[in-house]
Amino acid sequence: MIQDMVKTYPKDAPIGVFDSGVGGLTVFREIMRQMPNEKIVYFGDTARVPYGSKSKETVTRYSKQIARFLQTQNVKTIVVACNTASAYALEELEAEIDIPVIGVVKPGAKVAAESTVNGKIGVIATEATIGSKIYSQYIEELKPGVSISGKACPLFVPLVEEGLLQDPVTDEIARRYLAELIDIDIDTLILGCTHYPLIRSTVGKIMGEKVTLVNPAYETARELKEMLGKLGMLNDSAPALGSEQYRFYVSDKADKFIRFANSIIKYGILSAKQINIEEY
Amino acid sequence: MIQDMVKTYPKDAPIGVFDSGVGGLTVFREIMRQMPNEKIVYFGDTARVPYGSKSKETVTRYSKQIARFLQTQNVKTIVVACNTASAYALEELEAEIDIPVIGVVKPGAKVAAESTVNGKIGVIATEATIGSKIYSQYIEELKPGVSISGKACPLFVPLVEEGLLQDPVTDEIARRYLAELIDIDIDTLILGCTHYPLIRSTVGKIMGEKVTLVNPAYETARELKEMLGKLGMLNDSAPALGSEQYRFYVSDKADKFIRFANSIIKYGILSAKQINIEEY
Repeated sequence: MIQDMVKTYPKDAPIGVFDSGVGGLTVFREIMRQMPNEKIVYFGDTARVPYGSKSKETVTRYSKQIARFLQTQNVKTIVVACNTASAYALEELEAEIDIPVIGVVKPGAKVAAESTVNGKIGVIATEATIGSKIYSQYIEELKPGVSISGKACPLFVPLVEEGLLQDPVTDEIARRYLAELIDIDIDTLILGCTHYPLIRSTVGKIMGEKVTLVNPAYETARELKEMLGKLGMLNDSAPALGSEQYRFYVSDKADKFIRFANSIIKYGILSAKQINIEEY
Repeated sequence: MIQDMVKTYPKDAPIGVFDSGVGGLTVFREIMRQMPNEKIVYFGDTARVPYGSKSKETVTRYSKQIARFLQTQNVKTIVVACNTASAYALEELEAEIDIPVIGVVKPGAKVAAESTVNGKIGVIATEATIGSKIYSQYIEELKPGVSISGKACPLFVPLVEEGLLQDPVTDEIARRYLAELIDIDIDTLILGCTHYPLIRSTVGKIMGEKVTLVNPAYETARELKEMLGKLGMLNDSAPALGSEQYRFYVSDKADKFIRFANSIIKYGILSAKQINIEEY
């Protein structure tokens, strides 16, 4: 039983969430919405962002440092809110730490497998996530015989970070990236990078109404809630008035993070603390 | 005298060159061309690239780690082949290490100041370099009264790394970034990021023939040669046949670096060695 395998924390201990930078805030946002009682400690590795073009070895080393840092914050569970880190490091994190760890890949894969009717699923993600073939692996286990086509979209993250969410340039780049997925007639598309829900409308417009877009951020929060419920670890009362429900840590200076974060989530992030993640 | 201030190495000691990733290879290439006798040790911080969106504090910490690593390779001088690191960390590096250090900003600023006729200079670079106002500072010292206008171009690096060197999307983005510099009628434009010489033709086409493009990579190699000459540190004989003239180190896996590097410089890079830069 999973309860025996893991260290248990009080229900009101925070949930740890990490990402290579700001993208994981789309997951943070879903957890806030679906579990408004929970405290969250978020870490964004802004000094080493992005992960999506880096190797498994490097991303795993970084992820372990972050997990060690989050454990110093007495989190009751860790959410790997980054597809690349989930693809590369989840297994090693599960082996190393004694609290439950959940990534964004499995929940997204599960819903995509359930959703497809014609058996053709597309995945758009970073080079690293596509190269890892992790979505294919999970989906094939769940629904053998389904065809999965991956497409790396390295320009989407910089376009989002430049604020070109609705722009002819983003449309043009998206049309190029998505052309081959349209050609093979997929009916389900996984937005396999935490930045991509922010250009969901552009992607949806190009793919057309018949294609279901799967947002792993949403599915992960849902699965997290289910898991915490089963473990009896859901926080059943709202945090005391005046207590700090959300805390943010970053590895580079906080000001830029705070600006971007406030544009994604409608909770006034007053501060984020910079730490030296290389020490963990 | 500068000779007394610095530790001296044999003439045939290598030159250390570093960058946040692959961009500094445009500087490496100019050093190869202008000083074919020199040995070079190149370090690309591919595990933490890019620097251009990060803070002064973080870029300085990274640059110091790299300078310490390069000194373990007994380099006779260090070239900071990254505009962001030159803008943020050069002074602290000069204070910390006892061999000559040269950045790419000063040489570019010097040539721009000499080149302008109407006294209006533009600089395109990363957010960090533009935010530091370092080009303005140097140019104003050299030629007071000149007007310098900076423009951050955060999408240029990802577009170059995606291989869109000649592409309508790159044209469109460049037109947007450069519009305000055209409006104010600059006659000289500094390509203030090591990736930008790779889209020199796109930038040149948009700016028009009357605008002089300054490539700091070229100017830095020229100034390095002059400095080594004055210090009596130029290597006057070609490396022995069979000896290793160029060595490459990276902080992430070598394979991707090698592919990109071979597309920039026409020297067959057979190998690059991965090191853990966080240990320095």
